[in-house]
Amino acid sequence: MANAQPVQHLISCLVENHPGVLARISGMFSARAFNIESLAVGTTADPTISRITIAVPGDPGILEQIIKQLAKIIDVIHVEDISETDHVERELMLIKVNCEGRNRSEIMQICDIFRARIVDVHSDCLIIEVSGTLNKNEAILRLFQPFGILEMTRTGRVALHRGPRRLELPAVEAEG
Amino acid sequence: MANAQPVQHLISCLVENHPGVLARISGMFSARAFNIESLAVGTTADPTISRITIAVPGDPGILEQIIKQLAKIIDVIHVEDISETDHVERELMLIKVNCEGRNRSEIMQICDIFRARIVDVHSDCLIIEVSGTLNKNEAILRLFQPFGILEMTRTGRVALHRGPRRLELPAVEAEG
Repeated sequence: MANAQPVQHLISCLVENHPGVLARISGMFSARAFNIESLAVGTTADPTISRITIAVPGDPGILEQIIKQLAKIIDVIHVEDISETDHVERELMLIKVNCEGRNRSEIMQICDIFRARIVDVHSDCLIIEVSGTLNKNEAILRLFQPFGILEMTRTGRVALHRGPRRLELPAVEAEG
Repeated sequence: MANAQPVQHLISCLVENHPGVLARISGMFSARAFNIESLAVGTTADPTISRITIAVPGDPGILEQIIKQLAKIIDVIHVEDISETDHVERELMLIKVNCEGRNRSEIMQICDIFRARIVDVHSDCLIIEVSGTLNKNEAILRLFQPFGILEMTRTGRVALHRGPRRLELPAVEAEG
Protein backbone atom coordinates (compact mmCIF):
# COMPACT_ATOMS: atom_id res chain seq x y z
CA MET A 1 0.00 0.00 0.00
CA ALA A 2 1.36 3.44 -0.87
CA ASN A 3 2.04 5.46 2.26
CA ALA A 4 2.96 9.12 1.83
CA GLN A 5 3.47 9.78 5.56
CA PRO A 6 7.05 10.52 6.66
CA VAL A 7 8.74 8.00 8.96
CA GLN A 8 7.60 8.64 12.52
CA HIS A 9 10.11 8.08 15.29
CA LEU A 10 9.24 7.62 18.93
CA ILE A 11 11.64 9.03 21.49
CA SER A 12 11.15 7.67 24.99
CA CYS A 13 12.76 9.58 27.90
CA LEU A 14 12.90 8.77 31.58
CA VAL A 15 13.19 12.01 33.54
CA GLU A 16 13.34 13.13 37.15
CA ASN A 17 9.89 14.38 38.07
CA HIS A 18 11.03 17.98 38.74
CA PRO A 19 9.19 21.14 37.71
CA GLY A 20 10.72 22.62 34.57
CA VAL A 21 11.93 19.41 32.90
CA LEU A 22 9.11 19.40 30.39
CA ALA A 23 9.65 23.11 29.68
CA ARG A 24 13.37 22.43 29.07
CA ILE A 25 12.63 19.57 26.71
CA SER A 26 9.87 21.27 24.74
CA GLY A 27 11.96 24.46 24.62
CA MET A 28 14.81 22.48 23.10
CA PHE A 29 12.53 21.29 20.31
CA SER A 30 11.05 24.70 19.56
CA ALA A 31 14.45 26.47 19.65
CA ARG A 32 15.58 24.16 16.86
CA ALA A 33 12.19 24.31 15.07
CA PHE A 34 11.78 20.54 15.34
CA ASN A 35 8.21 19.49 14.73
CA ILE A 36 6.60 17.45 17.55
CA GLU A 37 3.76 15.29 16.26
CA SER A 38 2.62 14.21 19.71
CA LEU A 39 3.91 14.15 23.27
CA ALA A 40 2.73 12.22 26.31
CA VAL A 41 3.98 12.61 29.87
CA GLY A 42 2.99 10.50 32.84
CA THR A 43 4.47 9.14 36.03
CA THR A 44 6.01 5.66 36.17
CA ALA A 45 5.67 3.05 38.92
CA ASP A 46 8.24 5.23 40.79
CA PRO A 47 6.45 8.56 41.40
CA THR A 48 9.76 10.49 41.37
CA ILE A 49 10.33 9.47 37.74
CA SER A 50 8.21 10.39 34.72
CA ARG A 51 8.31 9.02 31.22
CA ILE A 52 7.97 11.37 28.27
CA THR A 53 7.23 9.88 24.85
CA ILE A 54 7.66 12.18 21.86
CA ALA A 55 6.64 11.34 18.29
CA VAL A 56 8.74 13.20 15.72
CA PRO A 57 8.86 12.78 11.97
CA GLY A 58 12.26 13.09 10.35
CA ASP A 59 15.41 11.48 9.06
CA PRO A 60 17.85 9.52 11.27
CA GLY A 61 20.47 12.33 11.23
CA ILE A 62 18.10 14.83 12.82
CA LEU A 63 16.90 12.22 15.29
CA GLU A 64 20.44 11.47 16.46
CA GLN A 65 21.01 15.19 17.02
CA ILE A 66 17.78 15.44 19.07
CA ILE A 67 18.69 12.45 21.22
CA LYS A 68 22.18 13.82 21.95
CA GLN A 69 20.71 17.17 22.98
CA LEU A 70 18.10 15.51 25.21
CA ALA A 71 20.73 13.34 26.91
CA LYS A 72 22.58 16.52 27.96
CA ILE A 73 19.62 17.81 29.98
CA ILE A 74 20.46 17.20 33.63
CA ASP A 75 17.12 15.69 34.70
CA VAL A 76 17.02 13.25 31.76
CA ILE A 77 17.93 9.78 33.10
CA HIS A 78 17.77 7.89 29.83
CA VAL A 79 16.66 8.65 26.28
CA GLU A 80 16.24 6.30 23.36
CA ASP A 81 14.59 6.01 19.94
CA ILE A 82 12.26 3.17 20.89
CA SER A 83 10.84 2.90 17.35
CA GLU A 84 14.18 1.38 16.26
CA THR A 85 13.73 -1.55 18.66
CA ASP A 86 11.26 -4.41 19.06
CA HIS A 87 8.45 -2.60 20.87
CA VAL A 88 4.72 -2.38 21.54
CA GLU A 89 3.13 1.01 20.88
CA ARG A 90 -0.34 2.35 21.45
CA GLU A 91 -2.24 5.60 21.21
CA LEU A 92 -5.68 6.25 22.62
CA MET A 93 -8.26 8.43 20.87
CA LEU A 94 -11.67 9.69 21.93
CA ILE A 95 -13.69 10.58 18.82
CA LYS A 96 -17.07 12.31 18.84
CA VAL A 97 -18.83 11.18 15.67
CA ASN A 98 -21.98 12.68 14.22
CA CYS A 99 -24.56 9.89 14.32
CA GLU A 100 -28.21 9.90 13.40
CA GLY A 101 -30.21 6.77 14.20
CA ARG A 102 -29.95 5.35 10.68
CA ASN A 103 -26.12 5.41 10.75
CA ARG A 104 -25.72 3.91 14.20
CA SER A 105 -25.52 0.24 13.17
CA GLU A 106 -22.89 0.98 10.52
CA ILE A 107 -20.79 2.87 13.07
CA MET A 108 -21.22 0.01 15.55
CA GLN A 109 -19.95 -2.45 12.92
CA ILE A 110 -16.82 -0.38 12.38
CA CYS A 111 -16.30 -0.28 16.16
CA ASP A 112 -16.61 -4.09 16.36
CA ILE A 113 -14.04 -4.61 13.61
CA PHE A 114 -11.54 -2.25 15.26
CA ARG A 115 -12.32 -3.36 18.83
CA ALA A 116 -13.34 0.20 19.61
CA ARG A 117 -15.78 0.98 22.43
CA ILE A 118 -18.75 3.32 22.39
CA VAL A 119 -18.45 5.23 25.68
CA ASP A 120 -21.19 7.87 25.29
CA VAL A 121 -24.43 7.91 23.30
CA HIS A 122 -26.51 10.98 22.49
CA SER A 123 -29.37 11.31 19.99
CA ASP A 124 -27.05 13.14 17.56
CA CYS A 125 -23.59 11.77 18.31
CA LEU A 126 -21.48 9.03 19.84
CA ILE A 127 -18.14 9.13 21.63
CA ILE A 128 -15.88 6.28 20.59
CA GLU A 129 -12.77 5.14 22.45
CA VAL A 130 -10.15 3.34 20.41
CA SER A 131 -6.56 2.42 21.06
CA GLY A 132 -4.02 1.09 18.60
CA THR A 133 -0.99 1.78 16.51
CA LEU A 134 -0.71 4.90 14.38
CA ASN A 135 -1.83 2.98 11.26
CA LYS A 136 -4.89 1.46 12.89
CA ASN A 137 -5.95 4.79 14.37
CA GLU A 138 -5.52 6.62 11.06
CA ALA A 139 -7.59 3.90 9.36
CA ILE A 140 -10.50 4.20 11.79
CA LEU A 141 -10.42 8.00 11.51
CA ARG A 142 -10.71 7.73 7.71
CA LEU A 143 -13.76 5.47 8.12
CA PHE A 144 -15.50 7.87 10.51
CA GLN A 145 -14.77 10.97 8.43
CA PRO A 146 -17.81 10.55 6.09
CA PHE A 147 -20.16 10.62 9.11
CA GLY A 148 -18.60 13.82 10.43
CA ILE A 149 -16.08 13.99 13.26
CA LEU A 150 -17.41 16.64 15.66
CA GLU A 151 -14.31 16.68 17.85
CA MET A 152 -11.55 14.38 18.98
CA THR A 153 -8.66 14.12 21.35
CA ARG A 154 -5.68 11.78 21.14
CA THR A 155 -3.14 10.99 23.79
CA GLY A 156 -0.05 10.71 21.64
CA ARG A 157 1.77 7.41 21.25
CA VAL A 158 3.44 5.56 24.12
CA ALA A 159 5.63 2.46 23.83
CA LEU A 160 7.46 -0.25 25.79
CA HIS A 161 10.19 -2.66 24.67
CA ARG A 162 8.90 -6.19 24.12
CA GLY A 163 10.21 -8.85 26.53
CA PRO A 164 12.12 -8.21 29.74
CA ARG A 165 14.29 -5.35 28.49
CA ARG A 166 13.69 -2.08 30.30
CA LEU A 167 14.28 1.44 29.03
CA GLU A 168 16.74 2.43 31.77
CA LEU A 169 18.92 -0.69 31.40
CA PRO A 170 21.05 -2.05 28.58
CA ALA A 171 19.63 -5.12 26.83
CA VAL A 172 19.96 -8.09 29.19
CA GLU A 173 19.36 -11.81 28.97
CA ALA A 174 16.48 -13.03 31.14
CA GLU A 175 17.74 -13.81 34.63
CA GLY A 176 17.59 -17.19 36.38
CA MET B 1 -13.77 4.42 50.57
CA ALA B 2 -11.16 6.77 51.95
CA ASN B 3 -9.30 8.56 49.22
CA ALA B 4 -6.25 10.57 50.22
CA GLN B 5 -5.49 11.83 46.70
CA PRO B 6 -5.93 15.57 46.08
CA VAL B 7 -8.63 16.66 43.63
CA GLN B 8 -7.31 16.29 40.09
CA HIS B 9 -8.39 18.85 37.53
CA LEU B 10 -8.19 18.40 33.78
CA ILE B 11 -7.43 21.45 31.69
CA SER B 12 -8.20 21.05 28.01
CA CYS B 13 -6.68 23.57 25.55
CA LEU B 14 -7.11 23.95 21.83
CA VAL B 15 -3.98 25.56 20.38
CA GLU B 16 -2.63 26.56 16.98
CA ASN B 17 -0.20 23.87 15.92
CA HIS B 18 2.85 26.19 15.89
CA PRO B 19 6.33 25.35 17.16
CA GLY B 20 6.88 26.82 20.61
CA VAL B 21 3.31 26.67 21.92
CA LEU B 22 4.00 23.67 24.12
CA ALA B 23 7.21 25.27 25.39
CA ARG B 24 5.26 28.45 26.27
CA ILE B 25 2.59 26.51 28.12
CA SER B 26 4.93 24.19 30.00
CA GLY B 27 7.21 27.17 30.79
CA MET B 28 4.24 28.98 32.29
CA PHE B 29 3.61 26.06 34.64
CA SER B 30 7.24 25.68 35.70
CA ALA B 31 7.76 29.44 36.21
CA ARG B 32 4.93 29.37 38.75
CA ALA B 33 6.04 26.03 40.21
CA PHE B 34 2.69 24.44 39.36
CA ASN B 35 2.84 20.67 39.48
CA ILE B 36 1.76 18.92 36.25
CA GLU B 37 0.57 15.37 36.95
CA SER B 38 0.29 14.42 33.27
CA LEU B 39 0.15 16.12 29.88
CA ALA B 40 -0.97 14.81 26.50
CA VAL B 41 -0.66 16.61 23.17
CA GLY B 42 -2.02 15.41 19.85
CA THR B 43 -3.49 16.81 16.68
CA THR B 44 -7.25 17.15 16.21
CA ALA B 45 -9.30 16.37 13.08
CA ASP B 46 -7.95 19.72 11.81
CA PRO B 47 -4.17 19.22 11.48
CA THR B 48 -3.49 22.94 12.12
CA ILE B 49 -4.99 22.64 15.61
CA SER B 50 -3.72 20.53 18.51
CA ARG B 51 -5.36 19.69 21.77
CA ILE B 52 -3.33 19.72 24.98
CA THR B 53 -4.82 18.07 28.06
CA ILE B 54 -3.11 18.79 31.36
CA ALA B 55 -3.90 17.07 34.67
CA VAL B 56 -3.11 19.27 37.66
CA PRO B 57 -3.92 18.73 41.31
CA GLY B 58 -4.93 21.80 43.27
CA ASP B 59 -7.59 24.07 44.65
CA PRO B 60 -10.05 26.00 42.45
CA GLY B 61 -8.32 29.34 43.14
CA ILE B 62 -5.03 28.17 41.67
CA LEU B 63 -6.82 26.56 38.74
CA GLU B 64 -8.62 29.79 37.88
CA GLN B 65 -5.27 31.59 37.88
CA ILE B 66 -3.74 28.95 35.56
CA ILE B 67 -6.64 29.13 33.12
CA LYS B 68 -6.46 32.94 32.95
CA GLN B 69 -2.72 32.79 32.24
CA LEU B 70 -3.18 30.13 29.56
CA ALA B 71 -5.93 32.12 27.83
CA LYS B 72 -3.48 35.03 27.43
CA ILE B 73 -1.07 32.96 25.32
CA ILE B 74 -1.58 34.06 21.72
CA ASP B 75 -1.76 30.58 20.13
CA VAL B 76 -4.30 29.29 22.68
CA ILE B 77 -7.72 29.20 20.98
CA HIS B 78 -9.75 27.97 23.92
CA VAL B 79 -9.03 26.72 27.41
CA GLU B 80 -11.38 25.14 29.93
CA ASP B 81 -11.42 23.04 33.09
CA ILE B 82 -13.19 20.07 31.54
CA SER B 83 -13.31 18.16 34.84
CA GLU B 84 -15.96 20.64 36.05
CA THR B 85 -18.32 19.60 33.22
CA ASP B 86 -20.12 16.41 32.19
CA HIS B 87 -17.31 14.61 30.38
CA VAL B 88 -15.76 11.28 29.38
CA GLU B 89 -12.13 10.81 30.34
CA ARG B 90 -9.64 8.06 29.63
CA GLU B 91 -5.99 7.30 30.13
CA LEU B 92 -4.08 4.48 28.47
CA MET B 93 -1.33 2.54 30.26
CA LEU B 94 1.11 -0.10 29.06
CA ILE B 95 2.32 -2.13 32.04
CA LYS B 96 5.09 -4.74 31.94
CA VAL B 97 4.32 -7.19 34.73
CA ASN B 98 6.65 -9.85 36.07
CA CYS B 99 4.90 -13.15 35.34
CA GLU B 100 6.06 -16.69 35.87
CA GLY B 101 3.89 -19.46 34.47
CA ARG B 102 2.13 -20.16 37.78
CA ASN B 103 0.89 -16.55 38.06
CA ARG B 104 -0.33 -16.18 34.51
CA SER B 105 -3.91 -17.34 35.04
CA GLU B 106 -4.35 -14.99 38.01
CA ILE B 107 -3.06 -12.06 35.95
CA MET B 108 -5.35 -13.05 33.06
CA GLN B 109 -8.33 -13.02 35.45
CA ILE B 110 -7.51 -9.49 36.57
CA CYS B 111 -7.23 -8.45 32.90
CA ASP B 112 -10.66 -9.95 32.15
CA ILE B 113 -12.29 -8.09 35.04
CA PHE B 114 -10.76 -4.76 33.99
CA ARG B 115 -11.20 -5.34 30.24
CA ALA B 116 -7.43 -5.04 29.87
CA ARG B 117 -5.61 -6.70 26.96
CA ILE B 118 -2.41 -8.73 27.02
CA VAL B 119 -0.40 -7.38 24.08
CA ASP B 120 2.95 -9.15 24.56
CA VAL B 121 3.88 -12.45 26.21
CA HIS B 122 7.37 -13.52 27.22
CA SER B 123 8.41 -16.43 29.47
CA ASP B 124 9.11 -13.98 32.35
CA CYS B 125 6.73 -11.10 31.75
CA LEU B 126 3.60 -9.78 30.07
CA ILE B 127 2.75 -6.37 28.64
CA ILE B 128 -0.79 -5.33 29.50
CA GLU B 129 -2.73 -2.53 27.81
CA VAL B 130 -5.50 -0.95 29.84
CA SER B 131 -7.53 2.22 29.40
CA GLY B 132 -9.85 3.81 31.89
CA THR B 133 -10.44 6.58 34.34
CA LEU B 134 -7.82 7.56 36.90
CA ASN B 135 -9.54 5.47 39.60
CA LYS B 136 -9.77 2.32 37.47
CA ASN B 137 -6.16 2.62 36.39
CA GLU B 138 -4.91 3.16 39.95
CA ALA B 139 -6.92 0.11 41.04
CA ILE B 140 -5.42 -2.19 38.41
CA LEU B 141 -1.92 -0.92 39.21
CA ARG B 142 -2.44 -1.80 42.88
CA LEU B 143 -3.50 -5.33 41.86
CA PHE B 144 -0.41 -5.85 39.67
CA GLN B 145 2.05 -4.46 42.24
CA PRO B 146 2.44 -7.77 44.17
CA PHE B 147 3.60 -9.53 40.97
CA GLY B 148 6.21 -6.85 40.29
CA ILE B 149 5.80 -4.04 37.77
CA LEU B 150 8.95 -4.10 35.63
CA GLU B 151 8.16 -0.88 33.79
CA MET B 152 5.20 1.13 32.62
CA THR B 153 4.18 4.08 30.53
CA ARG B 154 0.98 6.08 30.71
CA THR B 155 -0.39 8.57 28.23
CA GLY B 156 -1.89 11.07 30.61
CA ARG B 157 -5.64 11.66 30.71
CA VAL B 158 -7.65 13.01 27.80
CA ALA B 159 -11.32 14.05 27.86
CA LEU B 160 -14.29 15.15 25.76
CA HIS B 161 -17.58 16.76 26.79
CA ARG B 162 -20.50 14.33 26.71
CA GLY B 163 -23.19 15.03 24.11
CA PRO B 164 -22.91 17.48 21.21
CA ARG B 165 -21.09 20.26 23.07
CA ARG B 166 -17.64 21.02 21.66
CA LEU B 167 -14.69 22.54 23.46
CA GLU B 168 -14.30 25.49 21.11
CA LEU B 169 -17.95 26.50 21.22
CA PRO B 170 -20.27 27.64 23.99
CA ALA B 171 -22.90 25.05 24.95
CA VAL B 172 -25.39 24.84 22.06
CA GLU B 173 -28.64 23.06 21.41
CA ALA B 174 -28.39 20.34 18.75
CA GLU B 175 -28.95 21.84 15.31
CA GLY B 176 -31.73 20.93 12.87
